Amino acid sequence: MITTKLPVRFVDCDAMGHVNNAVYYTYFEEGKREIFRWFTPSMDLGDWKVIVASTHCDYIHEINYDEMITVYTWISTISHSSFDVEHAIADEHGNWHARGRVTLIGYNYKTKEVEPLTDEIKAILRQHQDGPENVPELRQIRGVGETAR
Amino acid sequence: MITTKLPVRFVDCDAMGHVNNAVYYTYFEEGKREIFRWFTPSMDLGDWKVIVASTHCDYIHEINYDEMITVYTWISTISHSSFDVEHAIADEHGNWHARGRVTLIGYNYKTKEVEPLTDEIKAILRQHQDGPENVPELRQIRGVGETAR
Amino acid sequence: MITTKLPVRFVDCDAMGHVNNAVYYTYFEEGKREIFRWFTPSMDLGDWKVIVASTHCDYIHEINYDEMITVYTWISTISHSSFDVEHAIADEHGNWHARGRVTLIGYNYKTKEVEPLTDEIKAILRQHQDGPENVPELRQIRGVGETAR
Amino acid sequence: MITTKLPVRFVDCDAMGHVNNAVYYTYFEEGKREIFRWFTPSMDLGDWKVIVASTHCDYIHEINYDEMITVYTWISTISHSSFDVEHAIADEHGNWHARGRVTLIGYNYKTKEVEPLTDEIKAILRQHQDGPENVPELRQIRGVGETAR
Repeated sequence: MITTKLPVRFVDCDAMGHVNNAVYYTYFEEGKREIFRWFTPSMDLGDWKVIVASTHCDYIHEINYDEMITVYTWISTISHSSFDVEHAIADEHGNWHARGRVTLIGYNYKTKEVEPLTDEIKAILRQHQDGPENVPELRQIRGVGETAR
Repeated sequence: MITTKLPVRFVDCDAMGHVNNAVYYTYFEEGKREIFRWFTPSMDLGDWKVIVASTHCDYIHEINYDEMITVYTWISTISHSSFDVEHAIADEHGNWHARGRVTLIGYNYKTKEVEPLTDEIKAILRQHQDGPENVPELRQIRGVGETAR
Repeated sequence: MITTKLPVRFVDCDAMGHVNNAVYYTYFEEGKREIFRWFTPSMDLGDWKVIVASTHCDYIHEINYDEMITVYTWISTISHSSFDVEHAIADEHGNWHARGRVTLIGYNYKTKEVEPLTDEIKAILRQHQDGPENVPELRQIRGVGETAR
Repeated sequence: MITTKLPVRFVDCDAMGHVNNAVYYTYFEEGKREIFRWFTPSMDLGDWKVIVASTHCDYIHEINYDEMITVYTWISTISHSSFDVEHAIADEHGNWHARGRVTLIGYNYKTKEVEPLTDEIKAILRQHQDGPENVPELRQIRGVGETAR
């Protein structure tokens, strides 16, 4: 599990006075910094090796300016060329504010092709599959065919 | 169905040279402008009546700077106090770039309490349940219990 | 003079309910799109040829969500390897909301060296030196030595 | 002098691979957090008492992802109802990356009127007028009348 402390910026908040819903994904992105480093130890942005396939966030409690938040990041599913990154955001009192999941795919930005995860990467990912205690589960998302109109 | 044309800004793109994954939610937010107006005809930000409960996006093809995109927005599930907004992003050639869903809840920002949707609002929402033709389905998200480790 | 119409996004506004001061520079950046195209007709971000040396903005009136703004962009000083881009933002009623200036430098991102402006570019720049009528002047900025403590 | 350490976020960087020019103003804004607290000890965003009148930034060296930057913030001119905040950004090696100035005005968001600075605020501001050693001076900005065409 990766633990990332982040200061909430003034501009992260929208006109409702709380952190905007899109900014939670920026927090998740900061939570993945060490994951990016596993793929690109130099952190050279011209040598990036993952791309985002899908993202999800459940909002539990609003986040306010001048807070210090903690993003917890861990790995769940590991597949041939993709893996799921789980995220949860807590405040300094340990209250949960958000729960999310981001699916990353191994990707070659030059050939624009999906690349399988290497055994070395898979081994590192498997070492980070434990999440925080008492973390809320992701709410189930309905498939389009299941929606009641 | 609401159709919103948006210019991609230079700053929407991150160091990978494409629109950042979090910015898709800003595009979805712009697609909801008319929905916000149904709830708050004055568009007075001090009289806002919905809050975001969860968001999801599947990324299909990257979006580039200097493009004009179209955000299609329509309603699927309508519940007692919440409803699901479906989004899809296409480029000027009709290619799909993203597919998303945002769950909004009726909310009173003063009392910080959930509020049921009025019959008037439900009637308007029901008039906007048709999506665009050939829109891709949302990918199924696995519940945490279902993830294979 | 380049005229750029832009919709104000919900997320452009901060907790004060108006467009955040930093976002005006994003509006200025969108106003420079055609200038970028003069330097890089393909708009290939890997072949960019200018870099920002300094930016300035005077805020005249707040900008609100759901407005359509117009960014006026024109060239003032043209030097050996740099030039000043003047900006002014108006609303749909013709009221001025901001006045700015951005100094751009010819730049080679591969060698990381300043490059002189070509004669062709200078000729194009000189064709765009007229600003809008009745545009407010930039407020004079004091040098550090001149500040009264 | 106020010293603020900030992590550079992935999304702060644009397609050129460095921090976007507008984001420097977000860094400056974070550098002013303690100043905001002097005016609004509760940090209640509904009780804000300053507004931005003008901003300026000189860009010295690019800022990269995965850096930790330091924003130095101090006060120069103090007037009847406004004051100038000076900013400088350094990296962990002490190299200067940017130098800026932001003019703030005492402001009542309810009446939308400028308000004079109180004696208490002026006394606090005067205690923070020392900048960092060897900080570069702001480049002189030309008035519009002085520009050579």
